[in-house]
Amino acid sequence: MSLEVFVAETFGTMLLLLLGTGVVANVALARTKGNNGGFLMVNFGWGLAVFAGVYVAALSGAHLNFAVTMGLWVNGDTAEFAPGVDKNFINAIAYLAAQMLGSILGAVLCWLSYKQHFDEEPDPANKLGVFSTGPAIRSYGWNLVTEIIGTFVLVFVILSLGPTATGLGPLAVALLVVGIGASLGGPTGYAINPNRDLGPRIAHAILPIRGKGSSDWGYAWVPVVGPIVGGVLAGIVVQFITFPVAAA
Amino acid sequence: MSLEVFVAETFGTMLLLLLGTGVVANVALARTKGNNGGFLMVNFGWGLAVFAGVYVAALSGAHLNFAVTMGLWVNGDTAEFAPGVDKNFINAIAYLAAQMLGSILGAVLCWLSYKQHFDEEPDPANKLGVFSTGPAIRSYGWNLVTEIIGTFVLVFVILSLGPTATGLGPLAVALLVVGIGASLGGPTGYAINPNRDLGPRIAHAILPIRGKGSSDWGYAWVPVVGPIVGGVLAGIVVQFITFPVAAA
Amino acid sequence: MSLEVFVAETFGTMLLLLLGTGVVANVALARTKGNNGGFLMVNFGWGLAVFAGVYVAALSGAHLNFAVTMGLWVNGDTAEFAPGVDKNFINAIAYLAAQMLGSILGAVLCWLSYKQHFDEEPDPANKLGVFSTGPAIRSYGWNLVTEIIGTFVLVFVILSLGPTATGLGPLAVALLVVGIGASLGGPTGYAINPNRDLGPRIAHAILPIRGKGSSDWGYAWVPVVGPIVGGVLAGIVVQFITFPVAAA
Amino acid sequence: MSLEVFVAETFGTMLLLLLGTGVVANVALARTKGNNGGFLMVNFGWGLAVFAGVYVAALSGAHLNFAVTMGLWVNGDTAEFAPGVDKNFINAIAYLAAQMLGSILGAVLCWLSYKQHFDEEPDPANKLGVFSTGPAIRSYGWNLVTEIIGTFVLVFVILSLGPTATGLGPLAVALLVVGIGASLGGPTGYAINPNRDLGPRIAHAILPIRGKGSSDWGYAWVPVVGPIVGGVLAGIVVQFITFPVAAA
Repeated sequence: MSLEVFVAETFGTMLLLLLGTGVVANVALARTKGNNGGFLMVNFGWGLAVFAGVYVAALSGAHLNFAVTMGLWVNGDTAEFAPGVDKNFINAIAYLAAQMLGSILGAVLCWLSYKQHFDEEPDPANKLGVFSTGPAIRSYGWNLVTEIIGTFVLVFVILSLGPTATGLGPLAVALLVVGIGASLGGPTGYAINPNRDLGPRIAHAILPIRGKGSSDWGYAWVPVVGPIVGGVLAGIVVQFITFPVAAA
Repeated sequence: MSLEVFVAETFGTMLLLLLGTGVVANVALARTKGNNGGFLMVNFGWGLAVFAGVYVAALSGAHLNFAVTMGLWVNGDTAEFAPGVDKNFINAIAYLAAQMLGSILGAVLCWLSYKQHFDEEPDPANKLGVFSTGPAIRSYGWNLVTEIIGTFVLVFVILSLGPTATGLGPLAVALLVVGIGASLGGPTGYAINPNRDLGPRIAHAILPIRGKGSSDWGYAWVPVVGPIVGGVLAGIVVQFITFPVAAA
Repeated sequence: MSLEVFVAETFGTMLLLLLGTGVVANVALARTKGNNGGFLMVNFGWGLAVFAGVYVAALSGAHLNFAVTMGLWVNGDTAEFAPGVDKNFINAIAYLAAQMLGSILGAVLCWLSYKQHFDEEPDPANKLGVFSTGPAIRSYGWNLVTEIIGTFVLVFVILSLGPTATGLGPLAVALLVVGIGASLGGPTGYAINPNRDLGPRIAHAILPIRGKGSSDWGYAWVPVVGPIVGGVLAGIVVQFITFPVAAA
Repeated sequence: MSLEVFVAETFGTMLLLLLGTGVVANVALARTKGNNGGFLMVNFGWGLAVFAGVYVAALSGAHLNFAVTMGLWVNGDTAEFAPGVDKNFINAIAYLAAQMLGSILGAVLCWLSYKQHFDEEPDPANKLGVFSTGPAIRSYGWNLVTEIIGTFVLVFVILSLGPTATGLGPLAVALLVVGIGASLGGPTGYAINPNRDLGPRIAHAILPIRGKGSSDWGYAWVPVVGPIVGGVLAGIVVQFITFPVAAA
């Protein structure tokens, strides 16, 4: 992977996390203008965060999500991670590194953007909620099921977009994320992306956030393992559901 | 119909129902993150559920809805159910079987995704409301009128999209469903699709949902008959409203 | 104008009014599922009503709005009302007739779709509000100003879409209507279309709506005159703001 | 710069401000129909205001925002401000003049559209809030950080759209603005555009608005300096993040 590809993936993921964690900050933190803006606003915020990130990361194929990287890796119908980027262990690790770096940077930028609102927010759980996901009802098993299903849908449809020429490009993925959030985000807050959750959690642990509480490391494995399992399952299953429209 | 077409229609309908019933679960069930997210969020959830389903079912023409299959069948301006899929009784039954199977599977996946929230929801009516539609004011006659009109609009516009080249493809159908939901969903919750309602109702009857109530079979025929009547009417009427733009 | 063009314009306007008045019914009438769904839901409902109507009325150029017809008529940069439809007095009257007929039919279908909710709604003002617009603060002069400005924006941008190739087609107009509604709909409820207001008002006067009140004919001229003035102004002014991108 | 280009930029910016300030008026002023419509409605209002403005200002490249003009100016990868419009000091000043003129005119049209609601609104802060942005928590330093980051994202992604062919054109920019508003608008109300804030503030100072209060000139420099800094940074940084997809 060239440096340009690495930087593109990093910048795209940074934008995804900045805008994605930003909409949660706007809805959840004290005294913001978007306070209590509703779940649909959060869904659009994350969807359009993907939209922005995909444009910026065109060079790397805009995975922005290690579950997508894993899904592509195990998928036999796609030849490369991105044009000119071979599927191999080194490149997979490079994607992961870029995604983690971008996720942490994006979360830091969100914290800077909302610095005063983090300072004035009294509830530590709301502060962590801006950075990372948490379950509405804690049960590692069921939370894992929800994350697996949500990520399966995400990666399965993304891998189906290719053969179906549409011209919508980044918009299709953005709207898909709006929809998954609205529909499957109720139980766990839809990480559906390992680095989206883990990167900001690391940022939360490191940053000198005033009055912050626990980073809830006990839950941290669920939004990492669930999305990876869901992405891999999607990459495999989609091969048996063939969609070569021309060959119908 | 080839197995590939059958599987595509099944998977597409499964995604439609998973995401569609999912957004209702998110808005209606206890302790979800999207609780009371509003009717517009439900409209976008169902619209984007169609969006995802259409991409996945490209091979089968993505009916996802037996009212669409029926509308196409009676429509003389379209030659096939999908590229390479003849219009005949066997194929119509195969579409119906795929749609019913996908609808049931999607509802089961939704139940698994929201398992704990179903368990904690005290009101059996809210549980059934995730699976199937019900009228705001019960009156089989008027409820039927509403479903007929809503489905007529859906199938009529879908059959009008063909000759009008747009490039929006799946997005056009998705937005149409958002609009019909917002505008005509008030009285009956807009089934506008027989299998969308009947499949999950069967799932509701079969699944071991904690504290579930009646599956309301007395109403079940309305969202089956209404959409079929509306779809057939649309398939017939649209032939007399010709839109060959080149021939204007 | 051929019968096909007339019918297309009628059907398109009918769909516009059915879905447009439908979303107001859903938000405003008693016991609907979308009750109090918010102004943004109304904006999307009307925007997507335009979306559906435009597809169906492709053959007539999908004016759906006599202010658009008037704007095109006075505009020297466009040669026809639609491909093959000359600009002349007879055709303008034919557009108006189709638009009025479609508007009345659409309002009747809305009433049938929400029949029981009209019956149960106690406030006559809410019933009229589904059919026609009314001012938040009554002042014919200022209400007229608001309608003129809103319609000017609508017709001006529609006339600017042509030279700017986009591929979005009907979606661009739909989103424009969402935006004008959200931004300029506050004072008068944005008729921005003479037949959209007058047709349903006639329907309201004629239909046997249980417990209906006045059709408020005193205000009826404002959403007719304002949009026509705004549309004509836009058709004239846009000629002096030339946008031939190639000639830049 | 030709007069046509100047007029296009003026008209486009006028529409942007009319629709943008309009949605705030609708949500914030007394007795409007969209009162308390929510932050997401404001986000869509501003995004679709950009959408309308971009179509109208196609001839000038539709900057509509002096931060975009500055970002383009310092960016070495783009050769012109718009097709046929050289990058030079005179043209930059001409863009600024057109943008300021359009911003003031748009704010005046908004005031006329909502005249009675301005008259009836009791709180002077709400009146100013329609015209110009203000911080949720006043701190010039942190407010500046938020505006710099928000504008950086805006200009960075706009400059990334070029090489990534999409066909979405104006819609991509509109959705980007919806997303930035939802995600980064919480602390300062997202000016992310110097003339968007300064023009209406001048209009607020000049217009005979009944019961108006201070124009808050003490804050006025923040939404001017922040966006210019953010735009210039984006124009520079994007050069080091190269995205020539073909050269991957």
